Amino acid sequence: AGDSTAGRKVMVKCQSCHGKEGLGRALAGGGEAPNLAGQKYDYLVHSLMAYKAGERKSYMMSLVVKGLSEEDIANVAAYYAAIKITVEVPQE
Amino acid sequence: AGDSTAGRKVMVKCQSCHGKEGLGRALAGGGEAPNLAGQKYDYLVHSLMAYKAGERKSYMMSLVVKGLSEEDIANVAAYYAAIKITVEVPQE
Repeated sequence: AGDSTAGRKVMVKCQSCHGKEGLGRALAGGGEAPNLAGQKYDYLVHSLMAYKAGERKSYMMSLVVKGLSEEDIANVAAYYAAIKITVEVPQE
Repeated sequence: AGDSTAGRKVMVKCQSCHGKEGLGRALAGGGEAPNLAGQKYDYLVHSLMAYKAGERKSYMMSLVVKGLSEEDIANVAAYYAAIKITVEVPQE
């Protein structure tokens, strides 16, 4: 299921784009990294494994996942999934 | 850039899995849909276009995007991106 405390150490490889709090930042090449805060654990694992397998394409992500073991992936997914989010839908 | 008010009408095609508030729900086949609340507009558009082009694979998403025009995609991305999120990182 992943260990969010161990994932905090993996997160240092993610934070320059996705933030310690899981809020995506502006990228040097333009655009913004997606938010990861409070994202579903299974979805995060699935996404990272898809980048690792080359099924999802992203130059930056392909580089980063090379350095992550399956355990690292489970742990960092647990870290970002554990961030609590509250939402507010704008009124029309 | 997409019209979030128009996107509210498109969102009815998404809400059974992703919620009106963009919080993913449990899926009948197991697992949970990802959260979309407050996600980056460009990332949402890119993801939906990738499903439409078959570059990202998901049976459910491949069915849903068939019914969405590029304008629908821009508008529903604007709707979900406009939801405000606040985050709280758990203390160790």
